[in-house]
Amino acid sequence: MTKIISEEKLIEALRQKIKVSPQIVKGIGDDCAVLPYDSENYLLLSTDTLVENTHFLLNFIIPQQLGKKAIESNVSDIAAMNGLPREVLVSLVLPPETSTEFVNLLYEGMLESCKKYNLDLVGGNTTRGEKLVINITITGLVKKELVCYRSGAQVGDLLMVSGPLGGSAVALDLMLNHLPGNYLPHLEPRARLDFSQKYGHFFHALIDISDGLASEIRHICTESKVGAVIEKEKIPLSAEVRRAGQLLKKDPSEYALNGGEDYELLFTIAPQDAPKVPGIIIGKIVEEKEGMMLQERDKKIILSGGYDHFSS
Amino acid sequence: MTKIISEEKLIEALRQKIKVSPQIVKGIGDDCAVLPYDSENYLLLSTDTLVENTHFLLNFIIPQQLGKKAIESNVSDIAAMNGLPREVLVSLVLPPETSTEFVNLLYEGMLESCKKYNLDLVGGNTTRGEKLVINITITGLVKKELVCYRSGAQVGDLLMVSGPLGGSAVALDLMLNHLPGNYLPHLEPRARLDFSQKYGHFFHALIDISDGLASEIRHICTESKVGAVIEKEKIPLSAEVRRAGQLLKKDPSEYALNGGEDYELLFTIAPQDAPKVPGIIIGKIVEEKEGMMLQERDKKIILSGGYDHFSS
Repeated sequence: MTKIISEEKLIEALRQKIKVSPQIVKGIGDDCAVLPYDSENYLLLSTDTLVENTHFLLNFIIPQQLGKKAIESNVSDIAAMNGLPREVLVSLVLPPETSTEFVNLLYEGMLESCKKYNLDLVGGNTTRGEKLVINITITGLVKKELVCYRSGAQVGDLLMVSGPLGGSAVALDLMLNHLPGNYLPHLEPRARLDFSQKYGHFFHALIDISDGLASEIRHICTESKVGAVIEKEKIPLSAEVRRAGQLLKKDPSEYALNGGEDYELLFTIAPQDAPKVPGIIIGKIVEEKEGMMLQERDKKIILSGGYDHFSS
Repeated sequence: MTKIISEEKLIEALRQKIKVSPQIVKGIGDDCAVLPYDSENYLLLSTDTLVENTHFLLNFIIPQQLGKKAIESNVSDIAAMNGLPREVLVSLVLPPETSTEFVNLLYEGMLESCKKYNLDLVGGNTTRGEKLVINITITGLVKKELVCYRSGAQVGDLLMVSGPLGGSAVALDLMLNHLPGNYLPHLEPRARLDFSQKYGHFFHALIDISDGLASEIRHICTESKVGAVIEKEKIPLSAEVRRAGQLLKKDPSEYALNGGEDYELLFTIAPQDAPKVPGIIIGKIVEEKEGMMLQERDKKIILSGGYDHFSS
């Protein structure tokens, strides 16, 4: 049997097959499913999985942090639709050697993040397996006039991000290389619900940066049937990312473009609205036929890459 | 650190800690979370996980069957609240060696079951891990006047089940012992949505039998603060279960009491309504102080056991 294709191609192939009922506002293909709710709101539904040794290493993260991160990454999916989170379900696959202390501390972290967002933990299940798996399902509501998709980008829009990128990937790299540094962007990322709640009404297209900037730009371009030009030197990098790039002899922008788990927001906006939003302009939306390009001074190259769970 | 306590004790301990907002109709502790929706209905939300080598062995089940079983077990949770299922999210953890053919066949099975129940598959995610994990989240709606909890049993109620039990556990035992027999109850279980849709309005308490009859009776008794007396010889067993019991030298009732994945419904009902429902009476609800008893002819013993994911 042939080896598995990339996650994106797999999902795209499945999307072609899967028909949904007319009342479904949005099925597969965005950060959340968008479902009917009441006259003012849509119901948002999303699920996200953290797998031991794929998304986290138990040597490097304490259970409270892991619990918080699981909730934050799901809140980020609701933020990426301009919604407000409401409830979570928690499914755990626990290895037989797991201690009750570990589970209690994991829940302590989850409940701390739930409290921060006024989220209700309303159910879930626990079962046994060989490796720890944390699956969170989150619900949210979004005002119908505010719901924002990956598909809303328009030619002429500016591309903006809500904050500095690459911090999580750098921290992971430093940890794996046993080098000192600021590990918090990887261990305690924060969803930018504050940002989408305040400025979301300006956005045309919106996505959270969970899999690296390049991959998220590709999602917006594919769904919106547009192209994009990114100016490499405008990608916001923290001093820590620049320092680590030198130390680890890597182009620091690579951490932003092809790293993951920054959970900042990427959005497109009409040029006249950009000054009203305290984000960073990194490029612009162009015609689809112009493709996705990365510009560095006078040089333009094709923007490729982005973390893919099945090709990395 | 101490070894993990049983799933039930763990969940009970967590429930004590977890406070939910007043608008949450029912949080942790039933087959689904029950959430506000509209003037007539509640929103039901549940999640269920199938883990390779815990819930299934890839040598024994084909991917289409696995896909169908994943959906059926979730539909069963909606049936166990008297609801109708609406949408599912599918999260997969796929080992690196997984083929696209496998994933396609798995989805083929899931989509076949979705079609049967008019369910929309609206999202999910795929990620990499060492063992296959299938996590399904399901939504449903239930009429407010029909919602049925584990906690509704009343002293004097009869305890009934919707069909024969133990078939799934027997099939698994036969498969593991390389003995011939009817494997379908294990490989292709069916949710009893038909049954709850037709007769659910008669039920006082309701649960699906996913973890063995003894465990489900305990849930009803604990949540309803009642006791129960089960008549062992009334537990419905198929001819196959009786035959396999002889062959494998086990008390066939044990498969029903302590097996799992039958997905029949267990409910309590007023005696005068029992004749209107084509289920099997297996016992009655008594005062809490009388405990949970298993009666075999003149002998009464304490009913113990039930499959627990962390103690077996």
